[in-house]
Amino acid sequence: MKLLTLSQCFLMAAPIRLTSITRRASFSSATAAVKFEGGVSMVQGASRGIGLEFVKQLLENNEKGHVIATCRNPNSSSGLIHLKNKFAERLCISQLDLTIESSIEASAKSIKEKYGHLNLLINASGILSIPDALQPETTLNKVEKSSLMLTYEVNAVGPILVVKHLWPLLKVGGASGTERDVAVVANLSARVGSIGDNHLGGWHSYRSSKTALNQLTKTVSVEFARKKDPIACILLHPGTVDTDLSKPFQRNVPQGKLFTKEFSVQKLLSIIQNAKRDDNGKFFAWDGQEIPW
Amino acid sequence: MKLLTLSQCFLMAAPIRLTSITRRASFSSATAAVKFEGGVSMVQGASRGIGLEFVKQLLENNEKGHVIATCRNPNSSSGLIHLKNKFAERLCISQLDLTIESSIEASAKSIKEKYGHLNLLINASGILSIPDALQPETTLNKVEKSSLMLTYEVNAVGPILVVKHLWPLLKVGGASGTERDVAVVANLSARVGSIGDNHLGGWHSYRSSKTALNQLTKTVSVEFARKKDPIACILLHPGTVDTDLSKPFQRNVPQGKLFTKEFSVQKLLSIIQNAKRDDNGKFFAWDGQEIPW
Repeated sequence: MKLLTLSQCFLMAAPIRLTSITRRASFSSATAAVKFEGGVSMVQGASRGIGLEFVKQLLENNEKGHVIATCRNPNSSSGLIHLKNKFAERLCISQLDLTIESSIEASAKSIKEKYGHLNLLINASGILSIPDALQPETTLNKVEKSSLMLTYEVNAVGPILVVKHLWPLLKVGGASGTERDVAVVANLSARVGSIGDNHLGGWHSYRSSKTALNQLTKTVSVEFARKKDPIACILLHPGTVDTDLSKPFQRNVPQGKLFTKEFSVQKLLSIIQNAKRDDNGKFFAWDGQEIPW
Repeated sequence: MKLLTLSQCFLMAAPIRLTSITRRASFSSATAAVKFEGGVSMVQGASRGIGLEFVKQLLENNEKGHVIATCRNPNSSSGLIHLKNKFAERLCISQLDLTIESSIEASAKSIKEKYGHLNLLINASGILSIPDALQPETTLNKVEKSSLMLTYEVNAVGPILVVKHLWPLLKVGGASGTERDVAVVANLSARVGSIGDNHLGGWHSYRSSKTALNQLTKTVSVEFARKKDPIACILLHPGTVDTDLSKPFQRNVPQGKLFTKEFSVQKLLSIIQNAKRDDNGKFFAWDGQEIPW
């Protein structure tokens, strides 16, 4: 099996077929001095759906921008492999399992060695259902401890540990290639995580995990502000987007309210690219409206 | 070792020294027909602090009321043993470990067999710190996965599983011995669980777990309302109360803001006893003011 190191990924300009990606990013410190004028973005949970679309639009919209795409099993993401063929030089794919803190730590170390800083971190991963293992609850009677714990681990704990380990790299603030004067941490939440907006009930595990993510993000934002770090932490609701995550639950989505991932990510990127220090700690829907806690 | 069954506890009127309590409640179905005019209340997390004080005031304030006090290690609660000596007939002590769902289920089964119904459920348990194991975080750098998971398990998941298993017994509504026409589920939350009110940051694990408890309680309240169950689910902030939980963190409490548990529980019981259907899904401070999410 031919292994391709991430520094090789980075240096290789010609399109490739990514047959294999290293389990751990192994950046060459020799490249650390390279400047990244278009900014450095990381998308965690990039194998498919909204995360993959973020990677695509970040690469397409900013011809100098560099993107680190992370997911659990990079080799099985045909979407990332396709993008790697097209944007070999500016896309690095890194294995990261957000349920294993040492994996997050290793990614952060590699990114530090290679890029030195990070201007944007998007936590796009999330679980709602797993066939035969996890189902959004329709009633309290179906609430299981294992579902609550797993969903919390993946949707709330993981993203905050990613922020913890990438925090030092984000203190550089906004990139020269963007209009922003702040770095951005964008955590993908969901309107169903709002307590004030909860009129339907159900989906206990998912709701609770996203609400907890909201609180953790707010808590982190307070510390960043107090330390005068040039970082805006925001929470984003992408709308109901036509992805694998929402597929089993699209039946009741009103006409015109099921968005393509292209549309949703375009809207969310507009919020991210225009983020200001004042937005730190806020929760926005895809249309820029603030959502109550 | 002499074991005392809970049905014996119940039937024994004379003061006793409770040397041992059964690990599992073993109620006699022969007593199930007894009427409980003063209402039946359950306090989960009753070994000390606020939970123990709830048990005490519930017994003292309502001379006909029956109380089930649950905790992990009843034998080590001198406070409960003292109350048992005083209120032998109206107090039942039951072992319940809220991290083990089968333990919650067993308690619910025993309560059903003995009392048939429940008019009030108070989830009073909670963890904030454990010497040498769990410390409220002062910065993101100190956030650990194990702390986030443990605090969520105890402060959010456990109480909701208790509500899940006691739900069928609560459908009886308010007791004849109270003014209430609804049964009450009172989950002890905390103001630091409010996202909107989070101006200080820190305490990531504790905050996040209480915020999740708020969302889970709200979610449950929506289902109870839709099914027209005569149950009001409320969240309570007790203030900063002089208990073992707050002891290590009392230094910065402003003068006059550190309450005795007697005062706080008196205030909270007043909210509980006056709860109406409209209060379902609300979050109250000790003084009756609503707290933002």
